[in-house]
Amino acid sequence: MEVKEILKHVDHTLLTQTATWEEIKQICDDAIAYGTASVCIPPSYVKQAAEYAQGKMAVCTVIGFPNGYMTTATKEFETRDAIANGAEEIDMVINIGWLKDKKYDLIEEEIRTLKAACGDKILKVIIETCLLTEEEKVEMCKIVTKAGADYIKTSTGFSTSGATFADIELFAKNIGPEVKMKAAGGISSMDDAKKFVSLGADRLGTSRIIKIVKNEASSGY
Amino acid sequence: MEVKEILKHVDHTLLTQTATWEEIKQICDDAIAYGTASVCIPPSYVKQAAEYAQGKMAVCTVIGFPNGYMTTATKEFETRDAIANGAEEIDMVINIGWLKDKKYDLIEEEIRTLKAACGDKILKVIIETCLLTEEEKVEMCKIVTKAGADYIKTSTGFSTSGATFADIELFAKNIGPEVKMKAAGGISSMDDAKKFVSLGADRLGTSRIIKIVKNEASSGY
Repeated sequence: MEVKEILKHVDHTLLTQTATWEEIKQICDDAIAYGTASVCIPPSYVKQAAEYAQGKMAVCTVIGFPNGYMTTATKEFETRDAIANGAEEIDMVINIGWLKDKKYDLIEEEIRTLKAACGDKILKVIIETCLLTEEEKVEMCKIVTKAGADYIKTSTGFSTSGATFADIELFAKNIGPEVKMKAAGGISSMDDAKKFVSLGADRLGTSRIIKIVKNEASSGY
Repeated sequence: MEVKEILKHVDHTLLTQTATWEEIKQICDDAIAYGTASVCIPPSYVKQAAEYAQGKMAVCTVIGFPNGYMTTATKEFETRDAIANGAEEIDMVINIGWLKDKKYDLIEEEIRTLKAACGDKILKVIIETCLLTEEEKVEMCKIVTKAGADYIKTSTGFSTSGATFADIELFAKNIGPEVKMKAAGGISSMDDAKKFVSLGADRLGTSRIIKIVKNEASSGY
């Protein structure tokens, strides 16, 4: 698999609390230069990034992030606000407490509400696998499929651990044919990135892949 | 200082992503039984907790939490939504990227917007001290004072570390006379709690103090 092919699957990500506009701008420049699928950045930078990029790259942002326990009304507002500011992709976090309480209907309804708010924009659903049992992960594959979201995504990168190959394999077995997969959190080498893609992950949430490619380029790649 | 006096300063807190209603209900029961200042819980549980408590305790919730980089519009919506659901106290997180970028006016304007949304409810401003320089902490003391918030609060409990005595001492020197202080994150003993209060912290964000009191009670306290 060529590096260029991998880059097309990358949501080039910067979600640290302290990120300045200069850092976000660098992420945008890199995303444009290396042809990633999108940049994934905080909601408060979406408008500025969309204006800066002038359509040369897609802006993805995060909703109810990273803890997931905002109200559905707030997540819906945040989604509409992000799209009005220029976001083309929305990565939402589920309400994990509701999942632990087996309130599956509330979770499905919330995803449906956000999908409706997205219109023709892409909705990815982060289930934070590191906090879930295997049964809960399988349940979420079903709910995400039923609710009509575009992607199921492993992790926020802010909890106890990130994406695993086993989770992507589990997703692949349990989601419907319309649902794609995004692996995120802790993807730290090109080999890992290739493995995730070969297992069927359509997107990779990471900042390190671009860093690796840049380092290789500066050393003669 | 008596334990009962300390408890009046406690915002009894449960903000883990996986918290179920049973766990939140227990927090409410304990807050009522031990006479804490409030319960501090996720936005999605505010309505249920306010209905459950029937005015026997105050509900506090968190806004733009814990990363702080939601848009001002979303934080304002989330604040109004929380108050409509029964919240009497609002703990917001500042946009830390803006602080690193020295966009002090934007931060002050956001706090003012949220204070207006709060009306007569209490607004606490979390500055996440562990990510800030001493100069940034002092700057935030000035901004919080100017913007008319009710409290300055040290930490979310979700970053690299929590409240320190030194931070409360620094706050005390740099805030205006109308601003109170809340120490949160990592307060793990009754001695620590007493020290924070003696240094002038009016509120303590913690779950462990109630646990300590309960354990002492069950062993004959």
